[in-house]
Amino acid sequence: MSKQVKTIENALGRPVPVEINGRPAIPFQGVGQYIPTGRKYGPRIRSCADYPSDGDKRVATIKDALIRCGIRDGMTISTHHHLRDGDTVANMVFQAIHELGVKNIVWYPSASFACHAGLIDRMKDGTIQRIEGSMNGPLGRFTSIGGMEGMAVLRSHGGRYQAVQDGEVVIDIAVISAPAADAFGNANGVRGPAACGLLGFALADSQYADHVVVVTDNLEPFPCIPWQIHGNYVDYVVEVPSIGDPAKIVSGTTQITKSPDRLLIAEWAVQFAMEAGLVRNGFSFQAGAGGTSLSFSIFLAELMRKNGIKARFVRGGSNQYMTAMLEEGLTDYILDGQTFDLEGVRSMRENPAHQNTSPFTSYNYHGKGNFASMVDIAILGATEVDVNFHANVVTHSDGLLLHGIGGWQNCLFGRCVILPIPLFRDRIPVIRDAVTTLCGPGELVDVIVTERGIAINPRRQDLFDALKNTTLPLRTIEELKTEAETICGGPPAAPKLGEEIVAAIKWVDGTVIDCVRRVILD
Amino acid sequence: MSKQVKTIENALGRPVPVEINGRPAIPFQGVGQYIPTGRKYGPRIRSCADYPSDGDKRVATIKDALIRCGIRDGMTISTHHHLRDGDTVANMVFQAIHELGVKNIVWYPSASFACHAGLIDRMKDGTIQRIEGSMNGPLGRFTSIGGMEGMAVLRSHGGRYQAVQDGEVVIDIAVISAPAADAFGNANGVRGPAACGLLGFALADSQYADHVVVVTDNLEPFPCIPWQIHGNYVDYVVEVPSIGDPAKIVSGTTQITKSPDRLLIAEWAVQFAMEAGLVRNGFSFQAGAGGTSLSFSIFLAELMRKNGIKARFVRGGSNQYMTAMLEEGLTDYILDGQTFDLEGVRSMRENPAHQNTSPFTSYNYHGKGNFASMVDIAILGATEVDVNFHANVVTHSDGLLLHGIGGWQNCLFGRCVILPIPLFRDRIPVIRDAVTTLCGPGELVDVIVTERGIAINPRRQDLFDALKNTTLPLRTIEELKTEAETICGGPPAAPKLGEEIVAAIKWVDGTVIDCVRRVILD
Repeated sequence: MSKQVKTIENALGRPVPVEINGRPAIPFQGVGQYIPTGRKYGPRIRSCADYPSDGDKRVATIKDALIRCGIRDGMTISTHHHLRDGDTVANMVFQAIHELGVKNIVWYPSASFACHAGLIDRMKDGTIQRIEGSMNGPLGRFTSIGGMEGMAVLRSHGGRYQAVQDGEVVIDIAVISAPAADAFGNANGVRGPAACGLLGFALADSQYADHVVVVTDNLEPFPCIPWQIHGNYVDYVVEVPSIGDPAKIVSGTTQITKSPDRLLIAEWAVQFAMEAGLVRNGFSFQAGAGGTSLSFSIFLAELMRKNGIKARFVRGGSNQYMTAMLEEGLTDYILDGQTFDLEGVRSMRENPAHQNTSPFTSYNYHGKGNFASMVDIAILGATEVDVNFHANVVTHSDGLLLHGIGGWQNCLFGRCVILPIPLFRDRIPVIRDAVTTLCGPGELVDVIVTERGIAINPRRQDLFDALKNTTLPLRTIEELKTEAETICGGPPAAPKLGEEIVAAIKWVDGTVIDCVRRVILD
Repeated sequence: MSKQVKTIENALGRPVPVEINGRPAIPFQGVGQYIPTGRKYGPRIRSCADYPSDGDKRVATIKDALIRCGIRDGMTISTHHHLRDGDTVANMVFQAIHELGVKNIVWYPSASFACHAGLIDRMKDGTIQRIEGSMNGPLGRFTSIGGMEGMAVLRSHGGRYQAVQDGEVVIDIAVISAPAADAFGNANGVRGPAACGLLGFALADSQYADHVVVVTDNLEPFPCIPWQIHGNYVDYVVEVPSIGDPAKIVSGTTQITKSPDRLLIAEWAVQFAMEAGLVRNGFSFQAGAGGTSLSFSIFLAELMRKNGIKARFVRGGSNQYMTAMLEEGLTDYILDGQTFDLEGVRSMRENPAHQNTSPFTSYNYHGKGNFASMVDIAILGATEVDVNFHANVVTHSDGLLLHGIGGWQNCLFGRCVILPIPLFRDRIPVIRDAVTTLCGPGELVDVIVTERGIAINPRRQDLFDALKNTTLPLRTIEELKTEAETICGGPPAAPKLGEEIVAAIKWVDGTVIDCVRRVILD
């Protein structure tokens, strides 16, 4: 095995592999420049004659289901990550595959977490050839140091839908963990011991996979409604005692930050949005689940309340603060991609204005538009930003691949993209000359808000104009970089990297925007 | 033009065309015998780069939208029939096409009504080459007498979804009338002056058509929720003053029958279902909107109330009697395909247990199962039934094609299919030696309930056993036929038919179950 594949320089000047796992890859060509010409993937036509007329698709075990699906070496198996770090189903699936002696599986999760660390053994023993999907923590680290047989492929939530829709990834067997399901395969995330709110990350899998297995610990009589996953796409249903650990699926409460620096960043970001004229009746925003983002939401809600401003919609990941905004009437709708706490799950279950979404509706770039570009304010994070506003979300400055892309690339299409980030973390500057891994082109990043000042992307003259009388500390990105380096005693040390490409980073249109090299640990 | 195409005898002994409009056709092979081998149709992959990032897809007129969709001779244009006899959009579409001078259009409505009678002129002038879809009334009559250039193709609701999914029909431009929509194209039927409840008949059109145009008289700010139609599939949105006449879209109230014979039929059908053990906690049923069916529902509800029985779900077409059952707690859910009155629309809008469905979820035979086979009692109509229990729903005994198939074929897969029908209509026997047009195989028809007796299909020994001590007047179907002929003075006169095939009748799997010949009027 060699991952020393040939590279070509893409439109951002990053060398990217010309082929990925033996298949040709298209280098990034610029935002909106690559226009696809093919047709969507056409799954096999099925007949009701081959399915039980009483709608009962249950089989005894996950292993049984995999056997009936024709599991064999080299297949692509998908899972979703709505159960987050509480998921136990992916481990059960690979335990069954391991017992069956099947090898060289491509695992296509929407994301993996620390709870999947045991699958490192399945990579070592050849059960899993590679992971195409986000890797948060241990699996990413293992990949970084060259432990994975194949090349990892990281995609955004929207890019994952796009890859399946376009037939770039053909899923042989999709395994869909379902907090509530019926024997026909209709499923949702709003009820049951493992309730996680919604199942949107598994939508593409259900629609396009050759075989679909629903695994549940909460079987209900037909019809299980809402049918976030349609049983009409499902082959088999398996009951298990538990699909996950509720405590790690959703948190009981969402914690806001207590760091004075982060609170200041959040406050400035809100003030910036207000002064830029973005906070007005009928506006929309998206903020993540991190401490700074949460504080942004809370400060913004206060501002809205004070000024009598109502949003048309708020994008989730939802949490108790968002659902409070909805119930208080500060927004007409929550358009939610995943629920981060129990209040989010309750609201999703009870409130029709708390709308579940999917990467299809929100993020798929190969559709006739998506919602991400209609969000007025997108609050996003980054591990690094460079002086061209290019940003990184997957690797740290030491080169280690420790995070997934999530919806981050997709949200860059928002009308004003604000990155509220600290100037440095653990005395390592966050703003630098060039990011370790380029996940998002600088032309889509509008504003950087740090505890030492705010940098507006020079492309956004309209924002400079709107802020011309501001009391906010506007700085150039170069000034911020210099300050960070002064405080930290210089730029981050260069990581020790090998030549081997361990992971490719896809852009939202399926082209390759960057890649990750093997890290040589001391 | 000649419609004297070669025929072949299918598995039911009916001669059917070997080709339809120049393309080879597969004769019916028996229920569940034809297993498809291909792949679902793959629409062209699109890019968000080609759609407005602010999500505003509005264009000024239907004609503008058609031009932008590249309208040209020979294209297939689809519409849906949720606005029923109140629809004005199909007429506007063909007025625009006529003005553009475009010819030979294949019109693919989910159904057409008397309000579309003006389109006979568009068939005469060559704008419309043929209609593939249900024709209720004048367009059917015009087709029957040989007025249509091409051969009509009639499909069930499920068959229509199947044909689009499988690529048998490729829709170039789908026009979707929407009682509520936003500028992105998200749409639903629950609000607005033309509220019709839901838009499920247009689901396949939205998913698979090359171009999709939403036409609305009620534009709402994004997001228009529920998004029964996803804007992510939509190319253009057109605002018009009115999409239809509310009085003809839904009736203010649904009328029950006052005919003593029909009330007796309904009462016997309910008694039969009860004695057959079909009415028990957790059961399900489907009944149509006709007078006898409505009475069946009302009598059944009384029985359930008296015996403390609760249904798990009731299938719509919904009406005020069904919504009352839901609100009274006599059923957990309504799974609704179309709303027939204003109460149905209100309930759909307000009650999450009133679930909108589509031909995909309910009827598509080329999926991994559908819901029709899980309905315990299906109450269906028929224009004719023969001694083999074969039934007809599209033509009258005079040969005229006056009705669509609707969901009728699909519902034949219910666990017990009961046809409550009068023994004769206008002194013409309904039960006869052979139906004029065979729409449903007798093996799927379980019980015929008439005002003179009840005939159980000999295949259903279990029903004979269950009813062995009944007071109901069980008869053989031959006895019923003889009685009808005795009363009416003989069997119906043979219609005067030409050789030309004016319409093909598809089975749920896309094979040809029968065809309709030209009627020679006196």
